[in-house]
Amino acid sequence: MSLLTNINSPSDLRKLDVEQLPQLCAEIREFLIDHLSRNPGHFASSMGAVDLIVALHYVYNTPDDRLVWDVGHQAYAHKILTGRREAFESLRTLDGLSGFPNPLESEADTFMAGHAGNSISAALGMAIADRSTPGHENRKTVAVIGDASISGGLAFEGLNNASNHPNNLLIVLNDNDMSIDDNVGALHGYLSDLTTSAGYNRWRNRMAVYLRKKGVLTENRKRAIIRFGNSVKSLVSKKQNIFEGLNIRYFGPIDGNDVVKLVKVFRDIKDMEGPRLLHVCTTKGKGYAPAEKDPSVWHAPGKFNPETGERKTADSKDVPPLWQEVFGQTLVELAELDDKVMGVTAAMPSGTSVCHLMKSFPQRSFDVGISEGHAVTFAGGLAAGGKRPFVAIYSSFLQRAYDNIIHDVAMQGLPVTFCIDRAGIVGEDGVTHHGVFDLAYLNCIPGMTVASPADEKTLRNLLYTALKGDSPFAIRYPRGRAFRNDWKSPMEPIKPGNGNTVLQCDDPAVIILTIGPALADALGAAEELNGEGVATAVYDMIWLKPLDEKILSHITRFPNAHIITVEDGVVTGGFGSAVTDSLRKMGSTNRITTLGVPDKWIAHGTVAELKNICGYDKGGILRAARGKSK
Amino acid sequence: MSLLTNINSPSDLRKLDVEQLPQLCAEIREFLIDHLSRNPGHFASSMGAVDLIVALHYVYNTPDDRLVWDVGHQAYAHKILTGRREAFESLRTLDGLSGFPNPLESEADTFMAGHAGNSISAALGMAIADRSTPGHENRKTVAVIGDASISGGLAFEGLNNASNHPNNLLIVLNDNDMSIDDNVGALHGYLSDLTTSAGYNRWRNRMAVYLRKKGVLTENRKRAIIRFGNSVKSLVSKKQNIFEGLNIRYFGPIDGNDVVKLVKVFRDIKDMEGPRLLHVCTTKGKGYAPAEKDPSVWHAPGKFNPETGERKTADSKDVPPLWQEVFGQTLVELAELDDKVMGVTAAMPSGTSVCHLMKSFPQRSFDVGISEGHAVTFAGGLAAGGKRPFVAIYSSFLQRAYDNIIHDVAMQGLPVTFCIDRAGIVGEDGVTHHGVFDLAYLNCIPGMTVASPADEKTLRNLLYTALKGDSPFAIRYPRGRAFRNDWKSPMEPIKPGNGNTVLQCDDPAVIILTIGPALADALGAAEELNGEGVATAVYDMIWLKPLDEKILSHITRFPNAHIITVEDGVVTGGFGSAVTDSLRKMGSTNRITTLGVPDKWIAHGTVAELKNICGYDKGGILRAARGKSK
Repeated sequence: MSLLTNINSPSDLRKLDVEQLPQLCAEIREFLIDHLSRNPGHFASSMGAVDLIVALHYVYNTPDDRLVWDVGHQAYAHKILTGRREAFESLRTLDGLSGFPNPLESEADTFMAGHAGNSISAALGMAIADRSTPGHENRKTVAVIGDASISGGLAFEGLNNASNHPNNLLIVLNDNDMSIDDNVGALHGYLSDLTTSAGYNRWRNRMAVYLRKKGVLTENRKRAIIRFGNSVKSLVSKKQNIFEGLNIRYFGPIDGNDVVKLVKVFRDIKDMEGPRLLHVCTTKGKGYAPAEKDPSVWHAPGKFNPETGERKTADSKDVPPLWQEVFGQTLVELAELDDKVMGVTAAMPSGTSVCHLMKSFPQRSFDVGISEGHAVTFAGGLAAGGKRPFVAIYSSFLQRAYDNIIHDVAMQGLPVTFCIDRAGIVGEDGVTHHGVFDLAYLNCIPGMTVASPADEKTLRNLLYTALKGDSPFAIRYPRGRAFRNDWKSPMEPIKPGNGNTVLQCDDPAVIILTIGPALADALGAAEELNGEGVATAVYDMIWLKPLDEKILSHITRFPNAHIITVEDGVVTGGFGSAVTDSLRKMGSTNRITTLGVPDKWIAHGTVAELKNICGYDKGGILRAARGKSK
Repeated sequence: MSLLTNINSPSDLRKLDVEQLPQLCAEIREFLIDHLSRNPGHFASSMGAVDLIVALHYVYNTPDDRLVWDVGHQAYAHKILTGRREAFESLRTLDGLSGFPNPLESEADTFMAGHAGNSISAALGMAIADRSTPGHENRKTVAVIGDASISGGLAFEGLNNASNHPNNLLIVLNDNDMSIDDNVGALHGYLSDLTTSAGYNRWRNRMAVYLRKKGVLTENRKRAIIRFGNSVKSLVSKKQNIFEGLNIRYFGPIDGNDVVKLVKVFRDIKDMEGPRLLHVCTTKGKGYAPAEKDPSVWHAPGKFNPETGERKTADSKDVPPLWQEVFGQTLVELAELDDKVMGVTAAMPSGTSVCHLMKSFPQRSFDVGISEGHAVTFAGGLAAGGKRPFVAIYSSFLQRAYDNIIHDVAMQGLPVTFCIDRAGIVGEDGVTHHGVFDLAYLNCIPGMTVASPADEKTLRNLLYTALKGDSPFAIRYPRGRAFRNDWKSPMEPIKPGNGNTVLQCDDPAVIILTIGPALADALGAAEELNGEGVATAVYDMIWLKPLDEKILSHITRFPNAHIITVEDGVVTGGFGSAVTDSLRKMGSTNRITTLGVPDKWIAHGTVAELKNICGYDKGGILRAARGKSK
């Protein structure tokens, strides 16, 4: 680590000779293996991007020149090179470094990069802003986007607008031929084909250098010649260049794991005018054999033995199932029951466990890539065609399909079931990934049914209920593990708007209303309270929409009871707010305390730590019941 | 009208000879001119699409074969041909025909088509559903999308996924070289260039017919040959074919106002396998000279004299300004005050009045096309680059940028101002266009400031306040006209969270809290109530976030007062709900009635009719105050 230990900022890096960069890259990889084997994070993509990151910081005058990451979990090397090497120990832990670039953490992180596809639009804004800012005219802006992210609609909108106004944005397409799961979509095949025609490009680039030397290739003529070159290339590769079609100059593909070459190419194109795209090909897991061999498993491998590559997985027979597994396996059962059932995922077949359906019913499973909007509208089309689509998307990513939910599903009353995974606080991925808004943003949509199960059996019954019903249906469940190993119960429908009385008492002093798995914490608190002589009742409301008005009407009989609502989501406009509205309409004057995620941004940490901070874990419920604030 | 009067369904149309179709198109145009001159609607695009619509219904077996429209206000001829000719008199009026295709209105309207860019995804869903539905295997699905809509990210996601699974979707690109305003983006220039190379395509198509006759062009060889042809074409046109790059076969461009030719082409390509795109060029306003000459003005011209083309505009000196004009002209003033001010619109420079800034400060104005997500993220980038962007988007379209607001602006605390036009009930455009969710979906986002002005002066002051502040700021205002002609008041900042006491009284029996222009109705009701001896106080709260807690705290002093909240948006999770939550936290036991848009879909009609139905106009407030429900 003789080089790395002396680098505390990009300017330190720029003091090295080009020839030293391969050694630096090796040291960074060693550093990553050492740290990530002990403190888990995103491994394979980070290893693949090391050379690219070193070359960018070496050639560009960062942080004055701006690097804009896209789904920045590949940017660990960037964090290490920009003054956060020592803090890297704290990655993804409470009060430690974020797992994603975050402008609140460092000026080197120019933009939030947790959701895919935003880098081109954001970087274009910065590049255009600089043009009219005195003293900033020569700042450079580089967006680094992956081959999966670029298939999303937002990235396309950015590309389509890139040439509208003068700017010198450089877009680096980091093509590792793979998103978390297999990449899909026509664009993917297109990029692969471009790559296979790399030989042609090498020829073209050598020709360009030759022509420039001979004085044939001047700046004036370059544009026309490049266009001609690309047309010739179309003939060679039997493909068209989409980027050139959008008035963005295309360079590449080149080897993105060759740091010396990258430096040379970046120097060549750094001062060119106008929007450009450089296509680099990198290998996921580069420099660590087990990860190169199986990059999907090594996307976020957890702890591992750096010598052997043995992963320390927690899986065993005694561990309860992941919520997503209960969903994914139940979906296969539903598909067996009804041949109209179809599954849709947006680039997350393993993350959502839709992979089980893909295996059992490949013709009825659709991975649409990182295109949440399309996923929902496409499901609307399937439903309009008589099918029963189940769309599994993480809560925070479903925000990208909000209008599609409203306009393309709910307004038409189409029977699409939204299976909202990672709902609530997600822990280590932090602020960009917490799925805390869905209850609030879905509750205001007419005709939606919105529910959250407290246990595996209820999740299965809700999925079954959605299938038996005939309208838009949303079911949210959290990241992580559920409760029981014997979860494969027979399925039966539950009536929307019918919650469960879990713990009744004759004259309650405290009434706890929960939605979702928060029930477990509520029961724990209630046990303690009842033990102390504070009569406490607990209701698992299950449904946000429609609310169980029978339960609410029943509890208004106890005007002196303190009502506490608990939800794993924002209290503003969420479950507690809906309960308050409903009780108010019934004329209740009960004291009500709504527990959940407060009206501020919640960073990363373990789920338990963050729930504790938000005050809706067992301890928080107890404090509320005892009338104490933290 | 000898032909049209006998057509009550597409099957009647299909009894005609091809040679009769031009006359039918002329009759439909006559019908449109007659009706739309008296009962205003979307004129120019509807006139341009007549031949295309006639040809589609003539060749395809509608409604069994499915036509999926995109921003369907060009589909009036489709309504006329599918059993709604006589009902057309009621277009866009209460209980009458919707101005957009609506599946709840007719089975011929296969999908909701109010927001741009959803047709490809929805139609793909239907086409794939049919593949696995016994008896439906041969149904055809056609998506008709405009050249402006196709520039949006959702359309790209649809295109990118079109070739992933077997289907025979036909995408008709209706290229009238113009959205409501000038079309923007690289794709637009690209389509223009394709059009200019029409000569090459004619040659290629003739060649294909010849090769097929000779037996050279078999189905097996066709794909390879078409690819080769497109590569040759790239050389000829100096452009690449983006669609072919996405594995979608491209045909065209052809004259979309030549109904006989369209019929021939649709017959040729109807039974082909795999996703295809037919590029047709139409003329906006076709068949009505004034509209052909000035299609932008004739997009939705209002009433007009069919003989002279004279439009019956209501504009005059005595009419108060449109809300959008107050915004648009104030934005220019702000830009004069501060050179960091920039304006962003998503294809609506005239609809949002950002056109004034474009005229005064073209370098600081950005029309990004129908790309609301990009508009917001791009603005985030501008703000990260030190600028002060004002993004003007209609409320219902801003739903398309929900995650961008959260992830790319609010989470980073960037000073982007959202100027939310058409907020609340919009009237004749109906269910897809009402901007009723914004208060609910913005209130749950941490760090947002959300306000709505009751008058012009407050709108100006809010815009000025947003500029003087340094955080995400949303200002919503409705469609239509404000109140005063002398609205150009000097601007001064207002403190967020400070509402106005408009009508105070010592011991109120009724307290009305309003946000936005609903204040006028509240004052009208209060005057009447006070006249009857019902002491009524009125507060203009201005701010949803932060709420004015001083006012709320003050009114809790009157525990017997009936509190009525009034908002032009959904009551579920909106302003009334936030007020209820806040009062509950203060321990208030007041009776509270929340007036606004109820939890159901609201169709079209005049704004006054719809507010009356929803019960939050003056009459509704009076009924609530008097304790009566409607």
